[in-house]
Amino acid sequence: MRESWDRMQRYFAKEKKEDIFILEPLDYHHIKHVMRMKEKEQIEVVIDGILYLACVQNIDEEITVRLLAKKEEHRKEKIKKVICIPYLKEQKMDMILQKATELGVDTILITPLERSLIKWKEEKEMKKIERWMRIVKEAAEQSKRLIIPKVIPLKETHPLENLKGLKMLCSTQSECKSLKKWMKTKRDYDTINMVFGPEGGLTKKEEEMFIQMGYEPVHLGNQILRTETVPLYLLSVLNYEFME
Amino acid sequence: MRESWDRMQRYFAKEKKEDIFILEPLDYHHIKHVMRMKEKEQIEVVIDGILYLACVQNIDEEITVRLLAKKEEHRKEKIKKVICIPYLKEQKMDMILQKATELGVDTILITPLERSLIKWKEEKEMKKIERWMRIVKEAAEQSKRLIIPKVIPLKETHPLENLKGLKMLCSTQSECKSLKKWMKTKRDYDTINMVFGPEGGLTKKEEEMFIQMGYEPVHLGNQILRTETVPLYLLSVLNYEFME
Repeated sequence: MRESWDRMQRYFAKEKKEDIFILEPLDYHHIKHVMRMKEKEQIEVVIDGILYLACVQNIDEEITVRLLAKKEEHRKEKIKKVICIPYLKEQKMDMILQKATELGVDTILITPLERSLIKWKEEKEMKKIERWMRIVKEAAEQSKRLIIPKVIPLKETHPLENLKGLKMLCSTQSECKSLKKWMKTKRDYDTINMVFGPEGGLTKKEEEMFIQMGYEPVHLGNQILRTETVPLYLLSVLNYEFME
Repeated sequence: MRESWDRMQRYFAKEKKEDIFILEPLDYHHIKHVMRMKEKEQIEVVIDGILYLACVQNIDEEITVRLLAKKEEHRKEKIKKVICIPYLKEQKMDMILQKATELGVDTILITPLERSLIKWKEEKEMKKIERWMRIVKEAAEQSKRLIIPKVIPLKETHPLENLKGLKMLCSTQSECKSLKKWMKTKRDYDTINMVFGPEGGLTKKEEEMFIQMGYEPVHLGNQILRTETVPLYLLSVLNYEFME
């Protein structure tokens, strides 16, 4: 059976002032009106990658969240996982953000790609980013992570050149190495950056550009996966590879 | 680049009468009104696990689909993958059915489990099953499979006892083997049956019952995944394990 704290609600705090945590306004609402917590009920609070046990007080007036004990120091993930995905339709995007967070992603770079059906609209930028931040925060709380993944929309592809660590791209070209053969050749890396194309794949020009930037093309075998399935497949495999 | 036939529309036929394929009524509609195909346009047709090249004729009247050539014999999958999942809310169920089909599942057994939030309603049975069949058929066509996975709702758990092949269950008990260690001990199997619990996991009683039936408990490591993510994680890992 899971430990009882495993079922405890977890929140990422904005700030810590001595033994009081400051949460997001929506989190106070969640505690009071969604979870309907009682006075002195215990919760988990994460700030700066550290996990605390806390309790809610003054539930009938202005809730405060008070530190009870430190539970877990910052746990370094074995590898940092960065996915570079095209801008997709809202439903697919939401799904990737949520599932990738569960599966341990660290950074999600939303990358402009030629065959992307959806174009980035500047005027909607802030609203979109807020929505994405909310999705990854909730998924990180639910899956008990100690960090909230970063979601960063890029206007150009050139920042992908300077990423540190292993670099791979999912190719539709069958003459490249399989993911499995490629993984076997790699040792001692602490970050892996993965580029995924939109429906229809990367264009030949894009693929060449990424290869120039140091991304190595790999293929995923015979099955044909939808765009939004590929990053989840890769993250699952990485979880498995680093499982003890 | 993908071959041009890779972008060709694929349909599973109901019947083959000499060189004419009989499709589902919805598929004729799809050809004519969704894809807006032209006279003599080529499609792929699968029947009995064999892939054919065909063309559409009489597009303005009663469409016929005529065989042109056999393209691929029945390709035996390396292993048969059976997932036993709880009955879930419609949106999650649809997602699992679609993604599991992409990821190569063969059979989906919908299993009554104690903590399942959704109860099976007899009177809605036929409608549900029709919906599920449509989802897996479309996903199988899109991901270019040669079979349509079976979706079978069970009224009891005892049929799971007699399944052939490897048997595993996803456990929340941390003292059992990790998926990775467990996989390393297994050789020469042609079917793998996997049981997944609902939100909150299998009950202790259910877990014991499945263990009695020969299911081996494994855990998936530290991350906490939502119910609907777990089968997709496992199917991704199996794909990877059997990749060349």
